[in-house]
Amino acid sequence: MAEKAAASKAYLRPHFKTHHSAEIGNWFRAFGVSRCTASSVDMAAYFAKAGWDDITIAFPYNPLESEEISEIAKDTTLNVLIESEESLKLANDLIRNPVGYFIKIDLGTHRTGIDPSHLQLIEALVSGSTDQVMFKGFIGHAGHTYYSADIKKIFEESLTILADLKDRFGGIISYGDSPSCSMVDDFSGIDEIRAGNFVFYDWMQVQIGSCKIEDIGVCLASPVVAIHKERCEVVVFGGAVHLSKESVAENGSKSFGKAVRLNENGWEHEVIGNVKKISQEHGIIEMSLEVLEELKIGDLIGILPTHSCLAADLQGHYYSTTGERIPKIIKD
Amino acid sequence: MAEKAAASKAYLRPHFKTHHSAEIGNWFRAFGVSRCTASSVDMAAYFAKAGWDDITIAFPYNPLESEEISEIAKDTTLNVLIESEESLKLANDLIRNPVGYFIKIDLGTHRTGIDPSHLQLIEALVSGSTDQVMFKGFIGHAGHTYYSADIKKIFEESLTILADLKDRFGGIISYGDSPSCSMVDDFSGIDEIRAGNFVFYDWMQVQIGSCKIEDIGVCLASPVVAIHKERCEVVVFGGAVHLSKESVAENGSKSFGKAVRLNENGWEHEVIGNVKKISQEHGIIEMSLEVLEELKIGDLIGILPTHSCLAADLQGHYYSTTGERIPKIIKD
Repeated sequence: MAEKAAASKAYLRPHFKTHHSAEIGNWFRAFGVSRCTASSVDMAAYFAKAGWDDITIAFPYNPLESEEISEIAKDTTLNVLIESEESLKLANDLIRNPVGYFIKIDLGTHRTGIDPSHLQLIEALVSGSTDQVMFKGFIGHAGHTYYSADIKKIFEESLTILADLKDRFGGIISYGDSPSCSMVDDFSGIDEIRAGNFVFYDWMQVQIGSCKIEDIGVCLASPVVAIHKERCEVVVFGGAVHLSKESVAENGSKSFGKAVRLNENGWEHEVIGNVKKISQEHGIIEMSLEVLEELKIGDLIGILPTHSCLAADLQGHYYSTTGERIPKIIKD
Repeated sequence: MAEKAAASKAYLRPHFKTHHSAEIGNWFRAFGVSRCTASSVDMAAYFAKAGWDDITIAFPYNPLESEEISEIAKDTTLNVLIESEESLKLANDLIRNPVGYFIKIDLGTHRTGIDPSHLQLIEALVSGSTDQVMFKGFIGHAGHTYYSADIKKIFEESLTILADLKDRFGGIISYGDSPSCSMVDDFSGIDEIRAGNFVFYDWMQVQIGSCKIEDIGVCLASPVVAIHKERCEVVVFGGAVHLSKESVAENGSKSFGKAVRLNENGWEHEVIGNVKKISQEHGIIEMSLEVLEELKIGDLIGILPTHSCLAADLQGHYYSTTGERIPKIIKD
């Protein structure tokens, strides 16, 4: 991702909401990454404390956390997202140290952001820039790539929208969604890439076509606690509190993750079962009788999560494939 | 629940996997509760440390945690769940201090447990009782009540199955699922009730008919960060990392939670919006234009979770409606 960004004269500001870990964040430094993205004020505070001094909180500015934002902004180049005059006024009134702001543009996902045709509102937001709350540019997340067959087309459309705004109003273009950042090679015209999921990838990204199964970098070691031959199911301690309830639809059923064999170096890339149901702690994996007969109670099986960001959020820490404990943010 | 259990000559062993909190666990003491249920070994260790000396881990025994189980069992009456001869042998081989075991019976949910007609296997498991790993009785969780229109019928069928096994093999009957424990008044014939969700309830239980909205005891305070009048949507900081991705189907759409107004004493019981979409940190609440026009950026709105157990698991702590911080298990 860093190479692709450099080749396109963009820089990478990876989203750290996938791994939630200062140690994993440090791995990016070797690739020349010096800026990062967070999805909450708490996460920004955590990475600021870990030495990141240029952070964008890619979530609409929450005025109730202005005090925490001011604290981080004391020693950190910090950007927030603005999408209304109301928010911009509150940011000016309540944030005590200089911050930058990106105007959030709705690229077609209709989750957050301003319709790019609302030029009057965008102009008002650009011209509201002050020394304390400074306009930095336009930010977009084409989340509709997750449901589209033509991801490159969405990327092209998004680029056109953002480039037009940059031409009119100045600032930089910050862009990021994992499917298009993975599948597009040339980011020319974009200043900053915010993709983050690629650090781990997951089964959803395999399904979308962003990556191959070999690219998935995180796996849940799950103990087999029950085997039900009569219905070709294995029950593991690996449920919604470990994997989250995120699923993708597949052949009329659901997948909450894919089972793989663990080995000494990590895990194998052959899918041996589908996590078809999940409750608080139970994962129900459907597999062939042949594979099921390899297993016994107490074996560990790997599960590639459907959505690694959510599965990682649910863990207290990771282990590397060489057995090192890797800490992450703790919610307390 | 304690009164209903007592009137039926059953005792209450509430499941603490809903609240995950030693402090909330203590509230049960005032109702004469002295035993509890946990869904993981870690959770059992946490509540043992908090003074609970009679705990059932209502999840199939995981031999990989035999060391941790042995530690807890040193000073605690601890029960595990067994559903295969393989597991029972491993428990006998690996657990160092005396524990009890319940035989897990599949009451029709087909998640875990033994088909009650497999009397030969059940007999083998009962007769495998030793001084170290002692048979205690039969345990069932009628999870199919969550998808049924006739919850009382499922309860009656479950009771018949478990009573028949008790007659044949002895031991006690431990029963628990929130819908039937909420909707059935007479538990006669059951020795132990394991319901847990009733401590908080949630929108799913309202939908099932287990409780009324007024009975819900937990609510996510969520800041409004964006307002989209044109599509009658409000965006809050309240996503999958706060509420989980659990949803219920409603009128062809989904509900990840219900929005309510917060007030000085907690929250109001009128639903003012539906959390129709959720991503990692974003909650998208659909509401009428009339209600939406009351709101401004930075307001706090309450969300009654669809599944309180999962939403609570995602929090670091709670606040009581009088502002006290209530700690809970921390995953680290």
